[in-house]
Amino acid sequence: MIVLFTDFGPTGPYVGQMKAVLHGIVPEAAVIELLSDAPACDPRAAACLLAAYVEDFPMGAVFLCVVDPGVGGDRAAVALKADGRWFVGPDNGLFNMVALNARALEWWDITWRPQRLSATFHGRDLFAPVAARIASGESPPGERRDPATRIDRGWLMDYERVIYIDHFGNAITGIRAASINPGRHLLAGGRKLGVASTYCDVAPGEAFCYANANGLVEIAVNRGSAASALGLRVGDPVAWG
Amino acid sequence: MIVLFTDFGPTGPYVGQMKAVLHGIVPEAAVIELLSDAPACDPRAAACLLAAYVEDFPMGAVFLCVVDPGVGGDRAAVALKADGRWFVGPDNGLFNMVALNARALEWWDITWRPQRLSATFHGRDLFAPVAARIASGESPPGERRDPATRIDRGWLMDYERVIYIDHFGNAITGIRAASINPGRHLLAGGRKLGVASTYCDVAPGEAFCYANANGLVEIAVNRGSAASALGLRVGDPVAWG
Amino acid sequence: MIVLFTDFGPTGPYVGQMKAVLHGIVPEAAVIELLSDAPACDPRAAACLLAAYVEDFPMGAVFLCVVDPGVGGDRAAVALKADGRWFVGPDNGLFNMVALNARALEWWDITWRPQRLSATFHGRDLFAPVAARIASGESPPGERRDPATRIDRGWLMDYERVIYIDHFGNAITGIRAASINPGRHLLAGGRKLGVASTYCDVAPGEAFCYANANGLVEIAVNRGSAASALGLRVGDPVAWG
Repeated sequence: MIVLFTDFGPTGPYVGQMKAVLHGIVPEAAVIELLSDAPACDPRAAACLLAAYVEDFPMGAVFLCVVDPGVGGDRAAVALKADGRWFVGPDNGLFNMVALNARALEWWDITWRPQRLSATFHGRDLFAPVAARIASGESPPGERRDPATRIDRGWLMDYERVIYIDHFGNAITGIRAASINPGRHLLAGGRKLGVASTYCDVAPGEAFCYANANGLVEIAVNRGSAASALGLRVGDPVAWG
Repeated sequence: MIVLFTDFGPTGPYVGQMKAVLHGIVPEAAVIELLSDAPACDPRAAACLLAAYVEDFPMGAVFLCVVDPGVGGDRAAVALKADGRWFVGPDNGLFNMVALNARALEWWDITWRPQRLSATFHGRDLFAPVAARIASGESPPGERRDPATRIDRGWLMDYERVIYIDHFGNAITGIRAASINPGRHLLAGGRKLGVASTYCDVAPGEAFCYANANGLVEIAVNRGSAASALGLRVGDPVAWG
Repeated sequence: MIVLFTDFGPTGPYVGQMKAVLHGIVPEAAVIELLSDAPACDPRAAACLLAAYVEDFPMGAVFLCVVDPGVGGDRAAVALKADGRWFVGPDNGLFNMVALNARALEWWDITWRPQRLSATFHGRDLFAPVAARIASGESPPGERRDPATRIDRGWLMDYERVIYIDHFGNAITGIRAASINPGRHLLAGGRKLGVASTYCDVAPGEAFCYANANGLVEIAVNRGSAASALGLRVGDPVAWG
């Protein structure tokens, strides 16, 4: 299985172009679009978001991840194996949270380059072929490195910011749900939000926070948009208090 | 074949997360996204919309339907078999129009619960596994009930409201196309609209109504957006007059 | 492989309805959505955009293309074979650039009509079945014509307009990248833009143009939206100067 995680947006040709490459190399692989609107300008938010969804996917899954504002510059290309799942993409911090969470970790610098390498679409030209080859059972075409030299261990495990706003206007934060308890309040958008379990636990229109289905603290409004009600955007600070 | 009908939006990870579950249980099934922007706050509009598309899909198709504002509350989970096609989702009226249209109908209350059941994502944790098991030939994991006790027969078969606005700005209504005739006029957005067969039958910029390709009355503007021109939104009343 | 190129938008049921038809006829074919937000009101922009992506897809691929404002009117239905790839859709200019580029070209007028032919959704009722039959190895159900009588040879090969705005706000033009050289400037949105190779070559916030990954001149802003910064929309004129 190949899992797509990009900031390409819900429209445009780029996902389809990558799928054509994947199909050409490994036609039998299932390809699942996980996210096509990852935060484009906040690699740390994207990294936290990616880490939250990993466990929904099976061992052996290959995550093809393209949030790559530095494309065409000197950032490296990498492949990681973290607890049995693969991750392929740019070396710009996108995989740092996955790596920090992993018990077993392998790291490759991708040194292979394709014959056709455009300056602006490494998702299609470099990362997709590498992901497809890994999905078909090959080793990453590169050089294995000691992960300890590549990971930034300075990241806090809770990222106290909004990392994603979904279609309902729910605001996902980078705070792990383990820190929730019913007596706490979350400060967000100038408001102090209580904790609930699900939408129906609060009155329509009321804002609250809860442990979302992927282990992160999320801010919602019952039958409304938390992003609109609280004026939240990706990158806004949140904190227990 | 598994058909997805949700209000998850064109972005976000939720459809992909459900696809991962489906693939894990029934990897050989084709999965088709029918709609990801079903009306979220108007179950009756969503019910009319769903019923309109059923016949485009083959016998045996399993519709996995998640328009579920009451998730985590006490609404039940159901599986229906209506004229040879299956429907799995929350028991909140979403299947009532499909049930009213059916000649042959079976009804199950889903009593099985998964080991991991989040409070806010039953689409992934409950409905997707049930749909996958039905698609693989199993019976619904629940108790069969008499549909007569579960259907609301009070619904009129024509729902005289806008039930969906598409990308072109066309406004689909819940009125069945059988009631169209060329001499009638449709009242919508404070206007009185004539009947035509297709866009080319009217002048550019002109608003009209017609029998759409799925048997409902639809409002359009040739080379324009009916929603913008007439100020229409989902839920707005429409009527012959 | 069947490739979808439509103006149906990122939401709505139309793509899913077509996929159901394709699956019913040729379930083993891979179906890839290339573009679902092709320019709806500018067939020439759509034609240039389509031609730019053709080479990313393998020989034998069948492009099912629906940008069809004249649906239900008297425009014809066509199937082309251009350099080994197939194209099925309305005869409204959408394939003219593909045809002009082709070294080997076959042209069929589609004369077959399905039993159910709605007035407004030929994508589902006519073009999808024809594309599926071609993908399964059949000849187009129609009459072969001399392409020379059907192609408009009056089109310039460079279309000096914005033909697409992507999710990042990059503005793709219809000018072929072969005409780029570092000393030139592109006039767009009242500005004179320099040439660069990739985003990192210019300062954040700076607008520039470059040869995109599909051989067209594209306008971008490093870490910003060119469409917003320059006020660009599909159809706006651009020129070397």
